[in-house]
Amino acid sequence: MNFRHSVATIALATALLATSVRADEGMWTFDAFPAAAMKQAYGFAPDQAWLDRVRGAAVRLTGGCSASLVSGNGLVLTNHHCVVDCVQTLSTPERDSVKTGFVAGALPKEAKCPGQQGEIVTAITDVTPTVKAAIGDLTGGALVKARNAARAKIESEGCTDPKRERCQVVTLFGGNQYKLYKYHKYSDVRLVFAPELQAAFFGGDPDNFNFPRYALDFGFLRLYEDGKPVATPGHLKWNPRAPKPDEAVFIVGNPGSTQRLFTEAQRAMRRQYNLPTNLLQLSELRGRLIEAMASDPEKARTGADELFGIENSYKALFGQYRSLLDPAFSGTLATAEATLRAKVAADPALAQRIGDPWADVDKAMAAYRNVYYPYRQLSSIGAGQLAGYAEAIVRAAAERTKPNGERLPEFTDAALPLVEKGLTDARPVYPWLEELNLCFSLSKTREYLKVDTAEVRALLGKESPEALAKRLVGGTKLADPAVRKALFDGGAAAVAASTDPMIRWVAANDAAARAIDLRFKAEVEGPTTAAATRLNAARFAVYGDTLYPDATFTLRISYGKVAGWVENGVAVPPVTRIAGLFDRATGSVPFDLAPSLEKAKARLDPQTLMDFVTTNDIIGGNSGSPAIDRDGTVIGAAFDGNIHSLGGNFGYDPALNRTVIVSAAAIQAALDHAYDGRAISAELKR
Amino acid sequence: MNFRHSVATIALATALLATSVRADEGMWTFDAFPAAAMKQAYGFAPDQAWLDRVRGAAVRLTGGCSASLVSGNGLVLTNHHCVVDCVQTLSTPERDSVKTGFVAGALPKEAKCPGQQGEIVTAITDVTPTVKAAIGDLTGGALVKARNAARAKIESEGCTDPKRERCQVVTLFGGNQYKLYKYHKYSDVRLVFAPELQAAFFGGDPDNFNFPRYALDFGFLRLYEDGKPVATPGHLKWNPRAPKPDEAVFIVGNPGSTQRLFTEAQRAMRRQYNLPTNLLQLSELRGRLIEAMASDPEKARTGADELFGIENSYKALFGQYRSLLDPAFSGTLATAEATLRAKVAADPALAQRIGDPWADVDKAMAAYRNVYYPYRQLSSIGAGQLAGYAEAIVRAAAERTKPNGERLPEFTDAALPLVEKGLTDARPVYPWLEELNLCFSLSKTREYLKVDTAEVRALLGKESPEALAKRLVGGTKLADPAVRKALFDGGAAAVAASTDPMIRWVAANDAAARAIDLRFKAEVEGPTTAAATRLNAARFAVYGDTLYPDATFTLRISYGKVAGWVENGVAVPPVTRIAGLFDRATGSVPFDLAPSLEKAKARLDPQTLMDFVTTNDIIGGNSGSPAIDRDGTVIGAAFDGNIHSLGGNFGYDPALNRTVIVSAAAIQAALDHAYDGRAISAELKR
Repeated sequence: MNFRHSVATIALATALLATSVRADEGMWTFDAFPAAAMKQAYGFAPDQAWLDRVRGAAVRLTGGCSASLVSGNGLVLTNHHCVVDCVQTLSTPERDSVKTGFVAGALPKEAKCPGQQGEIVTAITDVTPTVKAAIGDLTGGALVKARNAARAKIESEGCTDPKRERCQVVTLFGGNQYKLYKYHKYSDVRLVFAPELQAAFFGGDPDNFNFPRYALDFGFLRLYEDGKPVATPGHLKWNPRAPKPDEAVFIVGNPGSTQRLFTEAQRAMRRQYNLPTNLLQLSELRGRLIEAMASDPEKARTGADELFGIENSYKALFGQYRSLLDPAFSGTLATAEATLRAKVAADPALAQRIGDPWADVDKAMAAYRNVYYPYRQLSSIGAGQLAGYAEAIVRAAAERTKPNGERLPEFTDAALPLVEKGLTDARPVYPWLEELNLCFSLSKTREYLKVDTAEVRALLGKESPEALAKRLVGGTKLADPAVRKALFDGGAAAVAASTDPMIRWVAANDAAARAIDLRFKAEVEGPTTAAATRLNAARFAVYGDTLYPDATFTLRISYGKVAGWVENGVAVPPVTRIAGLFDRATGSVPFDLAPSLEKAKARLDPQTLMDFVTTNDIIGGNSGSPAIDRDGTVIGAAFDGNIHSLGGNFGYDPALNRTVIVSAAAIQAALDHAYDGRAISAELKR
Repeated sequence: MNFRHSVATIALATALLATSVRADEGMWTFDAFPAAAMKQAYGFAPDQAWLDRVRGAAVRLTGGCSASLVSGNGLVLTNHHCVVDCVQTLSTPERDSVKTGFVAGALPKEAKCPGQQGEIVTAITDVTPTVKAAIGDLTGGALVKARNAARAKIESEGCTDPKRERCQVVTLFGGNQYKLYKYHKYSDVRLVFAPELQAAFFGGDPDNFNFPRYALDFGFLRLYEDGKPVATPGHLKWNPRAPKPDEAVFIVGNPGSTQRLFTEAQRAMRRQYNLPTNLLQLSELRGRLIEAMASDPEKARTGADELFGIENSYKALFGQYRSLLDPAFSGTLATAEATLRAKVAADPALAQRIGDPWADVDKAMAAYRNVYYPYRQLSSIGAGQLAGYAEAIVRAAAERTKPNGERLPEFTDAALPLVEKGLTDARPVYPWLEELNLCFSLSKTREYLKVDTAEVRALLGKESPEALAKRLVGGTKLADPAVRKALFDGGAAAVAASTDPMIRWVAANDAAARAIDLRFKAEVEGPTTAAATRLNAARFAVYGDTLYPDATFTLRISYGKVAGWVENGVAVPPVTRIAGLFDRATGSVPFDLAPSLEKAKARLDPQTLMDFVTTNDIIGGNSGSPAIDRDGTVIGAAFDGNIHSLGGNFGYDPALNRTVIVSAAAIQAALDHAYDGRAISAELKR
């Protein structure tokens, strides 16, 4: 329920890998699958045709999830928690589909998900020489600028049809490699089916990231193009069978971000600053939301997805924090760094070539500590959907007047279509939630940066966070997509002429936000990238070419097997069955049964396999990834990791780290016996 | 506004002092004032008569504050934030004295503060040999048991009039010294005067722990005995003059708790576990309270004092956390430990005598990590006023059946009168706040310990935290002081017969709570005390007899001088004036003017000195302490420290650490020109 990729958790994409991989470890790119290693461990490995077919059926959802094509008619399997945001935007006070579930039943009733886009990789090209040539010997802010310009140019030249194509240059191995990913994009994604939230998220936050687990965390979408379902003959075959113990399983999806083998200094930064600060702010915001939602059923309905996101991020980050406090876990990471440093030191030519990147990272982290709070609080202006719209409008207007290569990366020609889609898609705005988020972020900015700082004075003027948030949210017209479209289309002139209070407020504070962003790039991002490039060169020199890059929310494949683990001396079995759901239900939130399941009890075979765990190495962003068997058929959808998987941000522990999957067997049973899933069931069998 | 002592922040009272003191450093006991050191630095030092007189006028408030006698009629000066809890209990929805201020004007209108007790030290006796003899060579849980028994016996024998006397054995230097403090206690404390909250706490949380500052954080109480004001001829003289730069100032009060020179392992434990966990839970609770209070003016009124306490604790603990992350600050502490260890190692006889207490502390901290979350979440049952009443009733009933020496320390004969007063004093209960606190603590216990833990299952049964809290708060009769008194008086039989749901729930979970407490004592407290005793022996051996013990919420005296400091190269002046208040006011919360001050603007001399800072070394619990000049007259009341003082929990930095004081001059101006303070003013002059 938690492996949706939260943008808030993307940190510097500069993890510094420093060791060789362990059994089942690795989030591999499709152009570098470790077939030999897998064959040695499992006695077989997929061939290129298998890989190509799977790659062509793997869908990235720009909302932060993964998915797969499971019919020839554009039907997409993913997690419930990847579609719940869409279900909520389609709900009303009178008809809460989050609570009751959503069954389209027929094509005309399938409903467009605002902001959602599906993307399928069509080509991967190595562009390392071009980007590295553009960077040359630059460092600091100049490095970042040159790299971004090179990326913008490659992306712009790589995709000529902005309506159907998307190009992205991806930084791998901390800047040691650059790859151009080309996608076919589907900007019309519609909701087909979602069970009740309570069926998908049985056990709620307490059971999240735990196992045994009894969640039906699945949902179906459909890709459309030109108003019609897309023909997808290359889809994966649906296979609602129970997986067997120890059988090989592949997870194919888009892990969002990992920080495997950061240097010790980077991990210390994260342990001391990023994680505690994010956790503290998430905690207070969680408290504010819980209490606001308790005061009003309509707030409870409209705040639910944000609360889920907060609690999910909180638990994931807390798991990271605890893993870094674990002496055994962090000791392993420290040893890996020490080993690499020793190997470099033992090779004078290598040492001469790469210098001391660890010391450079130390310096960059010292700079990061100094800029951390201002960068965190000021580099985005305000918080919430409306402030986000205003920031995108104000910045897009300014950036579009510049040459493509000189823009902020978020506003290059390649990036603008998704910005525009986000701005112009209609979606509900809940003023109470906007006020709450904006007021909260302002109060934290004041708290962390102090009342008398110039930037804080400029943000607040003589108003309190409460009064300012109320005035801006109450006064802005940005909830209207037509207003947003007019401002976006009108560009700099329209923004300059706008009297919308949110636009004016964001515009007045944009220069300060950009200044802190530039400082961060010059003092932290640039130096870290320069160091990481050399550090990864050392790593390749020492460990050879069989390594995988950190996660970047791009397509990866992981192999593993169905297997439980041992927790404090007790074996945790790898599977749960539907009988267990009914045993665990107490009748109290969040352990109450979804009405559809309660009613279907007699019709559901208690022995049906429900959820299962595997040794696959995944992370947030992999939510909705198909679990694929040796034959390339879909036997489930990954939706979570166990509690030990949270340390997976920094390192993979084969003994403990597990992926949690809802089985195709359970999904089939739910479609057949608990919901009106006849149409989908028929389509899946076709 | 923040130096009230929060019981939640009391940790193991086992700080391990390991260095010699620096200029103006030290919270000195009255039986060991460093007159020679002060004389050397300041050219004079108080004599014994001066010290005795001041000691006799210093009042400890059991609510967690300090205070002083300032008239011959029992009038007590303290901080507003030390009386605001009382003001709130005396308020109603119709008359919110927190907002409007409270002026008794005459004795009959002075109102009893529930739960409050004033205590004045009458004797300090060294009982180290007796306690050490009782402990002998014991360790672990046995050490704790023997020590507590010895303390109970000494306290019981030391005070023969439980109505007017209180005896407490205080552990100093981590168990190296034990002193019996004998107090005259005044269990009838009444409210005389409080300004508006907004005058006392101008700038609110953003300005808390900051300077320059414009807060009139004062209030007046009166001690009563047998229904009449107490005659207090030994009071301190009121002296509403402006302090002079660099003049010597004494702060006399009860610093609550410090952890100066914990070992590195203890600081790591605090940095990694105690501080983040407490901060995270305070954050969420803060968010819940803020939002609940925003939904309803009556909740805003009745939740205000708890929210203040949470925000104040949060800021104090966050300051501690940041100080431990500061490489310079923590480097100094690490060096001090290394120096002491080196000196011990260089003295074979000493090394032989004390062994390796650092290694013992390391082991105790490893055990602490393992027991940390269960101990934190389970050793008290539930949260909130009603659950606290139930726990006190259930435990007192059980403990009173045991011999005095075998009881939990909170329920010895010496401790019981204050327990009884807390239980039987009438004070308002706000059911919404009770539900919120209880629900929150239950949800955190489930989150940290997991749903399937036996203790969590026992606490919750099949209910959710929300439903259980609602049922217990809704069903209990413990809001009625007569019910509480009957249960307390009725003892074990009454508790066993009670059908009150809160009593039954607490009783059902008491064994588990006691078990984790015993485990903590055996594995953490006992071993840490044993090690600390030896470590402080080493410290005395190396540094001689001129050290001060960690704070223990007992009477201390600190000397220092009026002085600003340099912040990022900019000099911060040591005083503020009333003009600055009007300059800083924006009209927006929390920078709006209190109505009385706004109205009085023309009558107030803008040059009147308002708040000032000194180099005195204080900490939470010192709130309300008199600032006393060389002549023994009161020139202000300490109410805060600057942001750097928060690291003062671990170490004192003479360059940066400052005490914040509201001047007697400003108090006098407020009494004369902004409030109807004629009666008090006249009494102060008498």
